Amino acid sequence: MTLMGTNKQTKIVIVGGKATGSKAGAILARRLPEAEITLYQKEHYHSYSSCGLPYFASGDIGSFEQLTVTPYGVSKGPEFYKNSKGFTVVPGALITEINRRDKSISGKLLEGNEDFEAPYDKLVLATGSLPNKPAFPVADSPRIRHFVMPEDAVHFRKLAEGGKIGKVVIIGGGYVGCEMTEAMVGMWGIEATIVEKENQLLPYALDFEMSRIVERELSRQGVNVLTGSVVKGIEVDDQGNPVVHIQNREEIAADYVFLCIGVSPNIGLAENCGLEIGETGAIRVNDRMQTSDGDIYAGGDCVESFNLVTKSSIYIPMGSLANRHARIIAENIAGKETVFPGVTGTFLIKIFDLNVGAVGISSGEARKHGMAAKEVWGTFVDKPDYYPEPKRFTLKMIYSGENNRLLGLQAVGMGDICRRVDVFSEFLRRGSRVEDLFYLEHGYAPPYSEPLDPLSEMAGIAGAQKRGVSFLNFAEEIDSEAFFLDTREESEAVGLPWPLPKEAPEGGYLNIPLNDVRNNLDKLDRGRKIVIICSRGARSYQAALMLKKAGFNDVHVLGGGTLAALS
Amino acid sequence: MTLMGTNKQTKIVIVGGKATGSKAGAILARRLPEAEITLYQKEHYHSYSSCGLPYFASGDIGSFEQLTVTPYGVSKGPEFYKNSKGFTVVPGALITEINRRDKSISGKLLEGNEDFEAPYDKLVLATGSLPNKPAFPVADSPRIRHFVMPEDAVHFRKLAEGGKIGKVVIIGGGYVGCEMTEAMVGMWGIEATIVEKENQLLPYALDFEMSRIVERELSRQGVNVLTGSVVKGIEVDDQGNPVVHIQNREEIAADYVFLCIGVSPNIGLAENCGLEIGETGAIRVNDRMQTSDGDIYAGGDCVESFNLVTKSSIYIPMGSLANRHARIIAENIAGKETVFPGVTGTFLIKIFDLNVGAVGISSGEARKHGMAAKEVWGTFVDKPDYYPEPKRFTLKMIYSGENNRLLGLQAVGMGDICRRVDVFSEFLRRGSRVEDLFYLEHGYAPPYSEPLDPLSEMAGIAGAQKRGVSFLNFAEEIDSEAFFLDTREESEAVGLPWPLPKEAPEGGYLNIPLNDVRNNLDKLDRGRKIVIICSRGARSYQAALMLKKAGFNDVHVLGGGTLAALS
Repeated sequence: MTLMGTNKQTKIVIVGGKATGSKAGAILARRLPEAEITLYQKEHYHSYSSCGLPYFASGDIGSFEQLTVTPYGVSKGPEFYKNSKGFTVVPGALITEINRRDKSISGKLLEGNEDFEAPYDKLVLATGSLPNKPAFPVADSPRIRHFVMPEDAVHFRKLAEGGKIGKVVIIGGGYVGCEMTEAMVGMWGIEATIVEKENQLLPYALDFEMSRIVERELSRQGVNVLTGSVVKGIEVDDQGNPVVHIQNREEIAADYVFLCIGVSPNIGLAENCGLEIGETGAIRVNDRMQTSDGDIYAGGDCVESFNLVTKSSIYIPMGSLANRHARIIAENIAGKETVFPGVTGTFLIKIFDLNVGAVGISSGEARKHGMAAKEVWGTFVDKPDYYPEPKRFTLKMIYSGENNRLLGLQAVGMGDICRRVDVFSEFLRRGSRVEDLFYLEHGYAPPYSEPLDPLSEMAGIAGAQKRGVSFLNFAEEIDSEAFFLDTREESEAVGLPWPLPKEAPEGGYLNIPLNDVRNNLDKLDRGRKIVIICSRGARSYQAALMLKKAGFNDVHVLGGGTLAALS
Repeated sequence: MTLMGTNKQTKIVIVGGKATGSKAGAILARRLPEAEITLYQKEHYHSYSSCGLPYFASGDIGSFEQLTVTPYGVSKGPEFYKNSKGFTVVPGALITEINRRDKSISGKLLEGNEDFEAPYDKLVLATGSLPNKPAFPVADSPRIRHFVMPEDAVHFRKLAEGGKIGKVVIIGGGYVGCEMTEAMVGMWGIEATIVEKENQLLPYALDFEMSRIVERELSRQGVNVLTGSVVKGIEVDDQGNPVVHIQNREEIAADYVFLCIGVSPNIGLAENCGLEIGETGAIRVNDRMQTSDGDIYAGGDCVESFNLVTKSSIYIPMGSLANRHARIIAENIAGKETVFPGVTGTFLIKIFDLNVGAVGISSGEARKHGMAAKEVWGTFVDKPDYYPEPKRFTLKMIYSGENNRLLGLQAVGMGDICRRVDVFSEFLRRGSRVEDLFYLEHGYAPPYSEPLDPLSEMAGIAGAQKRGVSFLNFAEEIDSEAFFLDTREESEAVGLPWPLPKEAPEGGYLNIPLNDVRNNLDKLDRGRKIVIICSRGARSYQAALMLKKAGFNDVHVLGGGTLAALS
């Protein structure tokens, strides 16, 4: 048994060598140059970016080493951390116990199988997450695996490069699952099926109708999407090929199966030494990232977060939060009180050419929290239509029907959604209301934006809703007795216009371009439910105001327009 | 004489038919369906986007008509405003006088030369701006003109398409001048010279060193950039070709000269009827966009703004502000008190492949306002280096040395700067401090961003400055006695490394990669001024901390790195 750290320096021990651990170590070494800072990590490989693994699998990133080096190509191993950052990294060290009474950790050096103990003055837990265990039986096979660790990606990449994989099933339609479909199909031409038990993809980020845009894009790209599909079990056939059994569906044979069913906080060490675990199952920390033991800090994927929108605990494992936790931990240990106020829950993912983003909570989440949420939709372009190649996106905004407080935003499309997610996140953090979006002074020039930011436009749409305009969810089936008023130009409104019910009722549809609506109100039946449609939602809303002013009562607008409903 | 509007409805008169006027009319027609709303505009052509003119000149936009239609192709003429928006537009109407006592306007219909008068209950002035008059004599020639009105763009485009222009001089290095160089060179292969009297391009948006990045890009693209060049006059030679005379420089002959010397508020009507004019020369309005006459509102390019950073008046003619003014005006006239709190001054421009942005005030502006401003720089990529095609940009942040309040941001590079400008604008609006940037929860995924947002990184760099790290402006000449410590990898540090003084002193440079600095401190002279360089600034800062910890006193970091200084 080796007894480490017997001198008089302040001893800071960090457990876990990815984002939180290594960044906390680096900041601590700068703030407390006299302290002895030691980071223990189980892995032998150098600190790497887990978020990059799907892009390594896809071949977008040439070699795994690219995920383990600095921007200038230096490998992030112990020597780098010692020389460039000023603290010690001990790889291949499995920590087995935290002894809070005498403030030390016990562990085992995997090489040589040597036990060791190390005292700490302050301990940082950055133990990350572990892949979820499937709720169904899974055969033991190298061709059925999680997609979490570097070896998962390396193994797949080797087979894909060798042309050994023709058909893959991905279990789980969350963000890793969706990213993986692109990795499979886009780069390797693999036939991919994604199986999700909920009735939609990305259930934790998007509401159903927004997820439908993603699902259509995946289908267009040739991905076989099975939602509402509960896996009963995964077996291997006589040839060793995986077979996925799904309730009420035919089994699917594949060359490879990936379990992308999420991760859970790795809390074993914390739990065993009696640290408080939150209701989400992750380590509970206060706003200085301290656990229930004031000398033990924790951050990254092993802790729970405070959701600034719902004011309740949430588990969000995210590399960006892990980086921010590291600073809070280091500053507080170094004596500068610094707080982490909570999270808004930003989410971004690229799925083929589609940008998908969300922040705050969905309508579904709002309902779960008993909030009276209202929702509006709009489709926009990310630069003026006259500028070359404007790109489209659809926004959904969720806000409180009681006090107009902003609750969430979802954004899907090929246009630039990042700015909107960032800005909305900042509005959410401040507890802003719908009207505050009018104050946004976004950067404007035709190559980048329209004069009025889409978020301000969304505030206008919410205002119209407050004043009585009814917006319909574009994925909901519309009453087959409804009459459709199509306000698009004739040239746009060609073919059978969505969203006519499958059996369009006699006289159930009329195309009157917006500019002609005012003078043709007599063509519309005042006794009937009227659903107004256009491409992006803006014209319908203006027509709705004309109809309401003219005394029509049962008037509704297709939120986000046909482009949201169909694209 | 026609007397308009003699019935009993509330009469709202709008003067000016571009962004503010037409949008205010549209919102008013929705809010006050019973009101009589009439917009008078001098122009005969339909409402168009002035911001799009440079892109029409360049050929990026096929026809001028594209600037005058809705996204669905309907021309924004009187019929459109009547039918789709619900208010009256009278084109070709020159308003000559506002009679505040009897609340009416007088004017002349250009067609038929008919005088008219119209009473108003509320008047909206959206008279826009007029091109500045040059401070030097200019010959009367169709080949010397402003670039402000559609006919300027149409005229140029016709000649350019006919291959009639080989050489153009652009007077003024502001944003229109810079956009025009791209229009000339990029599309039409015209030889362009840009002449700016200040010692830098974009003097109202950028500080000198950031403008140098733009200047180098223009030079690389073949644009002849003449800064610090005062035009004495523009003549025409015997063949009718313009000749530009510049102080202390040779004259320049050209086929065409553009005056891009800015605009001034068009305040004639307001001034003549005694409305208060602010110190900037634009119409003064309160935060409800009311002029000194409570029944007269004004917005767009004819009014001045309140700068939220300097807390003083500023003149910022911007299409995005014009749109926002329109809503404030309309809501207040419709009886809903709504305020416009002021501006942060966002600025975006695309110059060839370079994205250029700014918000808040520059260091130069801060000095003018007597603010003790500090400045820091950093160079970043807009996605992780391991992801394909990360794109670079350099940020400069200005903050108060007294209380850490954020004052401004400048961003130049090929990477995604828009999100940063938007978010920083929102931080400025809230009067945030440097530390608040750590709270930003940006959207993160490798295709879009790094785990820690560059704005949070900038807060870290400012923190280092507060703790005593000295950052050098990358455009300032460095003391030729200084010793350069280059912390880049050997493979990066090839050739004569900038920013060595032209005559590199003996032993004035040493390349020690960051990872080796800690163990090679004895190679450095403690008595000498040491300037640490790297590519983006991050390594230098870490090396600076090592040197300071080891007792070196005169240690400085090249802000933004060699990539900022050289790119």
